[in-house]
Amino acid sequence: MADPWQECMDVGIEIARNAGTLICEALRNEVSFMTKSSPVDLVTETDRKVEAMIISSIKKKFETHSFIAEESVAAGESSLLTDEPTWIIDPIDGTTNFVHRFPFVAVSIGFAVKKELEFGIIYSCLEDKMYTAGKGKGAFCNGVQLKVSEQEDITKSLVITEIGYKQDPHIMELMLSNMERILGIPAHGIRAVGTAAVNMCLVASGGADAYYHIGIHCWDMAAGVVIVTEAGGVVLDITGGPFDLMSRRLIAASSRAVGERIAREIQAFPCGRDDRQNNLSN
Amino acid sequence: MADPWQECMDVGIEIARNAGTLICEALRNEVSFMTKSSPVDLVTETDRKVEAMIISSIKKKFETHSFIAEESVAAGESSLLTDEPTWIIDPIDGTTNFVHRFPFVAVSIGFAVKKELEFGIIYSCLEDKMYTAGKGKGAFCNGVQLKVSEQEDITKSLVITEIGYKQDPHIMELMLSNMERILGIPAHGIRAVGTAAVNMCLVASGGADAYYHIGIHCWDMAAGVVIVTEAGGVVLDITGGPFDLMSRRLIAASSRAVGERIAREIQAFPCGRDDRQNNLSN
Repeated sequence: MADPWQECMDVGIEIARNAGTLICEALRNEVSFMTKSSPVDLVTETDRKVEAMIISSIKKKFETHSFIAEESVAAGESSLLTDEPTWIIDPIDGTTNFVHRFPFVAVSIGFAVKKELEFGIIYSCLEDKMYTAGKGKGAFCNGVQLKVSEQEDITKSLVITEIGYKQDPHIMELMLSNMERILGIPAHGIRAVGTAAVNMCLVASGGADAYYHIGIHCWDMAAGVVIVTEAGGVVLDITGGPFDLMSRRLIAASSRAVGERIAREIQAFPCGRDDRQNNLSN
Repeated sequence: MADPWQECMDVGIEIARNAGTLICEALRNEVSFMTKSSPVDLVTETDRKVEAMIISSIKKKFETHSFIAEESVAAGESSLLTDEPTWIIDPIDGTTNFVHRFPFVAVSIGFAVKKELEFGIIYSCLEDKMYTAGKGKGAFCNGVQLKVSEQEDITKSLVITEIGYKQDPHIMELMLSNMERILGIPAHGIRAVGTAAVNMCLVASGGADAYYHIGIHCWDMAAGVVIVTEAGGVVLDITGGPFDLMSRRLIAASSRAVGERIAREIQAFPCGRDDRQNNLSN
């Protein structure tokens, strides 16, 4: 068979679009709910509902496949990646954005077989942008092929990262000092949009030259990794070494030169691994 | 006359849309130019071209009106605000984004009479979002009325700021320490999209709860100030005192409580004033 996973990808795209519709409906209809109860409850409820819809829709078509999905892992299921065809799912990437209605919220669906990523689907639902990439087949947004900026010079680069509250003051300090180091090279500036999936799509589209993040999860990265690499970009560990999906660390860049330059500047802090238990912090 | 400035606002909206079209065309057509020459040249050329179009279009209709516009001021014209009807224009807000094709770039047109802002127009052209507000008439995006989040609690707030390279290490340090202070309150997180005008629209739309910026210009703020206040928000100086359009300092917030809480945390650094000469740094 020439392309054994095309049917899975087609099904995944349809499901991602349906999931995005559910998310947009939740944002539209549940304003009263938001004000009456905790926004955290709303996001958890919607996260669970969307994830359950995605998994049950996939299971109907591909009943033997495995899953690693944010809410299921939070509920105690394994996040070990096996050789089985595995769907790696973040039902709502950008949950803080979702709570605030900051308009970048994405459904992220990656698919791996024999521990290799085969395709990635990211639907940025409020923008109605469907990003897709299959291994060896290029990356696309709403059907238009994507290409990274191919920038090789960090001093001409725009860099994305995440700037969230960290309980540990030492980690907070390292996060800020990493930004200071990147700006001091100097880079052109830093952007922070609040969703890992969209950040990776911005690198794939050439709108930004790099994205780095420590404390990210495999379901935040799986789809984006395929989209960035199929758009001509690179993914690295934050040390500059090979990317590891379970490491909770990522540099996605327009070129190896920019990625490695960032790796030389940033300092790691401990964030555990996704394939060990009790690593759901950050 | 019930509404003496409605005609000006209608003309302004049409011109902002035309300006946005020019900007999008420049981004689409001049890829080869971007790679052949300096991106700074491209942005300067497009900035000048768009500003010249905006000013000449307005002058055709309202020949006695005054202008404060980014490129004209850079070329030596006055940025003193008089009592005359005055159009305050940023042809491309988000020039670093423009250079990188980071997809947030806006045309910002404010209008003041007797030193009071009468209306504001911001066209986020790549998103095709037209934000408008007339004094006392509410704020709108593509015709839908906007309302701030009305969040009063900084610990439940999402805060926007700008994170650009600063030549002066002391200023860089203060910029980062301000972020650390805001996150440490704690706030929910920080976002940085790269255009002052869009940032203010995000506060007006309720997607973020506050935005602060030191080193901003009057043409970056004029339109947004009307949009934020007409959406129910507040604008303050970064000390928490009254907002001053020429001060190059701004807090825009969903509520006075959140704005004043941010004012208590952030430390100012010198940035000059727009109504004195030689203040085009940052």
